[in-house]
Amino acid sequence: MPIIITHIDKHMQMNENRANSQIITGVTPMNNDLKIANSTVAEPIAKIAEKLGIPEEALVPYGKDIAKIQLSYLTQLEKTKKPGRLILITAINPTPAGEGKTTVSIGLADALSRRGRKTCLALREPSLGPVFGIKGGATGGGYAQAIPMEDINLHFTGDIYAVTTANNLLCAMIDNHIYHGNELRIDVKNITFKRCMDMNDRALRNIVCGLGVRTDGIPREDGFDISAASEIMAVLCLASGQADLRRRLDRITIGYNLDGEPVLAKDLGAGGAMSVILKEAIKPNLVQTLEHTPVLMHGGPFANIAHGCNSIIATKMANHLADYTVTEAGFGADLGAEKFLDIKCRAADLWPDAVVLVATVRALKYHGGVPKDQLNTENVDAVKKGIVNLQRHLGTLKNIYGLPVVVALNHFATDTQAEMDEALKQTASMGAKAVLCDVWAKGGEGALELADAVTDSILNHSSPSHPYDYAEPIAQKINDIATRVYGAERVDFSKTAKQKIKMYEDQGYANLPVCIAKTQYSFSDDPKKLGAPENFTMDVRDVALSSGAGFIVVLCGTIMRMPGLPKKPAAESITLNENGETIGLF
Amino acid sequence: MPIIITHIDKHMQMNENRANSQIITGVTPMNNDLKIANSTVAEPIAKIAEKLGIPEEALVPYGKDIAKIQLSYLTQLEKTKKPGRLILITAINPTPAGEGKTTVSIGLADALSRRGRKTCLALREPSLGPVFGIKGGATGGGYAQAIPMEDINLHFTGDIYAVTTANNLLCAMIDNHIYHGNELRIDVKNITFKRCMDMNDRALRNIVCGLGVRTDGIPREDGFDISAASEIMAVLCLASGQADLRRRLDRITIGYNLDGEPVLAKDLGAGGAMSVILKEAIKPNLVQTLEHTPVLMHGGPFANIAHGCNSIIATKMANHLADYTVTEAGFGADLGAEKFLDIKCRAADLWPDAVVLVATVRALKYHGGVPKDQLNTENVDAVKKGIVNLQRHLGTLKNIYGLPVVVALNHFATDTQAEMDEALKQTASMGAKAVLCDVWAKGGEGALELADAVTDSILNHSSPSHPYDYAEPIAQKINDIATRVYGAERVDFSKTAKQKIKMYEDQGYANLPVCIAKTQYSFSDDPKKLGAPENFTMDVRDVALSSGAGFIVVLCGTIMRMPGLPKKPAAESITLNENGETIGLF
Repeated sequence: MPIIITHIDKHMQMNENRANSQIITGVTPMNNDLKIANSTVAEPIAKIAEKLGIPEEALVPYGKDIAKIQLSYLTQLEKTKKPGRLILITAINPTPAGEGKTTVSIGLADALSRRGRKTCLALREPSLGPVFGIKGGATGGGYAQAIPMEDINLHFTGDIYAVTTANNLLCAMIDNHIYHGNELRIDVKNITFKRCMDMNDRALRNIVCGLGVRTDGIPREDGFDISAASEIMAVLCLASGQADLRRRLDRITIGYNLDGEPVLAKDLGAGGAMSVILKEAIKPNLVQTLEHTPVLMHGGPFANIAHGCNSIIATKMANHLADYTVTEAGFGADLGAEKFLDIKCRAADLWPDAVVLVATVRALKYHGGVPKDQLNTENVDAVKKGIVNLQRHLGTLKNIYGLPVVVALNHFATDTQAEMDEALKQTASMGAKAVLCDVWAKGGEGALELADAVTDSILNHSSPSHPYDYAEPIAQKINDIATRVYGAERVDFSKTAKQKIKMYEDQGYANLPVCIAKTQYSFSDDPKKLGAPENFTMDVRDVALSSGAGFIVVLCGTIMRMPGLPKKPAAESITLNENGETIGLF
Repeated sequence: MPIIITHIDKHMQMNENRANSQIITGVTPMNNDLKIANSTVAEPIAKIAEKLGIPEEALVPYGKDIAKIQLSYLTQLEKTKKPGRLILITAINPTPAGEGKTTVSIGLADALSRRGRKTCLALREPSLGPVFGIKGGATGGGYAQAIPMEDINLHFTGDIYAVTTANNLLCAMIDNHIYHGNELRIDVKNITFKRCMDMNDRALRNIVCGLGVRTDGIPREDGFDISAASEIMAVLCLASGQADLRRRLDRITIGYNLDGEPVLAKDLGAGGAMSVILKEAIKPNLVQTLEHTPVLMHGGPFANIAHGCNSIIATKMANHLADYTVTEAGFGADLGAEKFLDIKCRAADLWPDAVVLVATVRALKYHGGVPKDQLNTENVDAVKKGIVNLQRHLGTLKNIYGLPVVVALNHFATDTQAEMDEALKQTASMGAKAVLCDVWAKGGEGALELADAVTDSILNHSSPSHPYDYAEPIAQKINDIATRVYGAERVDFSKTAKQKIKMYEDQGYANLPVCIAKTQYSFSDDPKKLGAPENFTMDVRDVALSSGAGFIVVLCGTIMRMPGLPKKPAAESITLNENGETIGLF
């Protein structure tokens, strides 16, 4: 079963959120996210920057409501300002509709602002492609949104285009090298770096290129991933600055030569041009929430084949600018928080001061055995039964990572009082603080209690702790995550996986962290094993090297890297009205 | 022989210009175009807008040196301000290095500004892809450049990305429709609309997509054009506004159904979403020259398979804002001016007040029989012999189009005094005004005499006149251009061309203008027939319908729609230095 990508997940979440919240808030179908977003007058972006003390000369305006921030300003900040508190938003294993992490992140940040705390969000930026597939954007929802939502969901500041272009320049240089004599002896049957496009286009998943006459290149099999799945995106998000970006680009493995030796982007002389293409994309984007809290929205890698968080540069900048930085990691805590803590935090020398674990009554019921189409019916027993999923995440975050955790129960209109009470009671019985929040309908007002709980939870000393060491053998690292974070009994490796792990270790990549790509619906690699499965084996089908990003991707199951469009794509109902306003987009 | 595209042509021209001008101006190789551009402090873009009276609320800033102009401002302008004078820059048939039309356009506009005339340029925006192939940009050269040249040559304001995305969304919707049951019965062997990418990538010219498992789509042959060759680019440039853009997008022919009937973008419901994707791209971009003359740089379609001029919106806006608008058409006058006058002017209800025909001693010698590698050696006889090329263009512009023409002899460092004297004498003997200009080395100062000659040449009354009527049969229109503009004896149509012309006429497209795609090096369809060939037959190999753009493309010879990279691509020497500055790009 293919794993649905982050973004589509968000789209579906937004629609479901909307449909539900309409019941309680009196929001009519006409009053959708875009209308709510557009009914708010944005503060001038320079004023938002001012809230964080960013000087005007560090801003590069993109339209009136968006600015990029000069990279040199981060260097300056790191020298002069101490970092503030960092709050990570993660979640239990989601339903296919998602649990609203972005919406809770935005609501929480707005609540912290309401409490007079100097707050900044650090979030991923959405891809454009999926917007035309399933209706909805990825900038929060209801009264907890980042704006200008339409621009953010369309071209924004061109970062994803820059990633696409750098990726495809490298590909063009690979094929060009082969065409002009193939001095590096690149094995056309073993090129691992693929082309990309920010579009849901299943027909590009597998192609043969280089057809035609002699001057049209050498035929070979290739394919396109969606741009968010490009290693360049992961590289951009893990780079500490311009020089580190260049190093990472240079060391990307594009494939192997006829002797089976790795060929790097550096060997093709592509790193410099790629860094030029990415020179604006590496600067974080500043926008705001509906309540005018500053948001650094920057980078958007997948949460399965990549690490699923916004750029290190944006998180660091936010952390030095604000007293409280709220950031999010993709999917459930098993995938998102694990990678945030074990990959991003170690690369960036960051560590959160508190974690918010988002849960919903719906997801708890789902883990308690209720089928997707019956989640709107009250079922207190299922809530009680499904709490085991939350319990395991809570345990991991507290015991393995040593972090203070607040559970945020994200309110949906279909939740009954009895269900909510049960969820809160169960969580309390684990000794955890649990708070109901209602950010879709109420914005920051709906997360004030959460904000207080989070600030109260912050300890004076919290030091990094991890389920595995980078120095362990690759298979051991995978085993540690599977047994300690997922609760697996054991890990089985395919013959291919074993061979490739050995090869990567021989090539000097033994010390890289591992980035596990598996379903987001379960702790296991089987989306049907809900709740807190035990005694299961995790099957590692294959591994892949992202030597630029600096991790080994561990493939458990089939991972979808290029989504398709549904039978009736959202694109068919998107248009401009006679006033030049976009309709049908969200 | 494939026809080299406009852009690469420009790149080569820039390099050659640079190499030559260094000899006379003392410009060292270190002092390249980028250095010259970066050594100039740009005026704030709001101040440039002010020169034209554009109010701040009509500006959308993109960084500090670039702004887009709101589309609604054009409507307002058309109601309140009369258009000024429009000056078209065209050229004789170029050498493979080009004759410097953009550089002359910029120099002339700067000279008009120096003479106190309220002047604005309307130019094409460059593609990014070719920048990584052959070194050099497409924003003029030397002291006649548009700035910020690096940004303009890289992502600029994302217009070309928007074109790419709209194009590829339509393609994804085609394949998605086929995959989900193919209700429209689209014939997979007869899809004419291709994917595109802004990259020189020969391996994508011909592909098979839709390979893999059942859920990966339906296999079919496809290919990528470079984005400048996309019909969406031509559509954007010919649209009079938002509503017209939508109409044109809807009527794009994507291919045929199994009964041979056309399938339009409208049938797939793609027009609305494409117009949303293009909603920022349709707004013209404001930049400036090194001498701070305003430039509207907007759209960049090919000059062979499309009409090769910047957007109608930009030209109209410039024309209403300034007293003198200088604009350019791609390639020589046989292709560029013909399409500007017969396609763009008729669509936009525009007509130039004067034409500048750019010539160089080098090109005259080339037409006089001197091989490319001997153009640096003095050869007055060849200048005299090659003047026939200039003469025919001059005759067409004066006699068929009824336009006042000034010949601008664009100075190269290798020109000898005797050669220049001969060129000027020969032109004068035809009764035409000819002026030497030296804009690369001197900027506007080098085109003052040209500016005076151009303003003097403007007549009080100049009314449109064309070599053919839209009402004529398609074959007759082609024949008229070939015999009246090119000097052909006759036109031969292939069997395919004849069949398709009949088909288009039957489908109701008989009244469309024709857009001829042929070599830019010769009046004929054979790049080796230099000078002013006579008694030649033009072979029409094929025709193609661009029903969105609104013309029939007439293919004479093989047209390259996707360039490749050279053995040592410019990308290999492009990088950021330790200060984060781009080097090796230009």
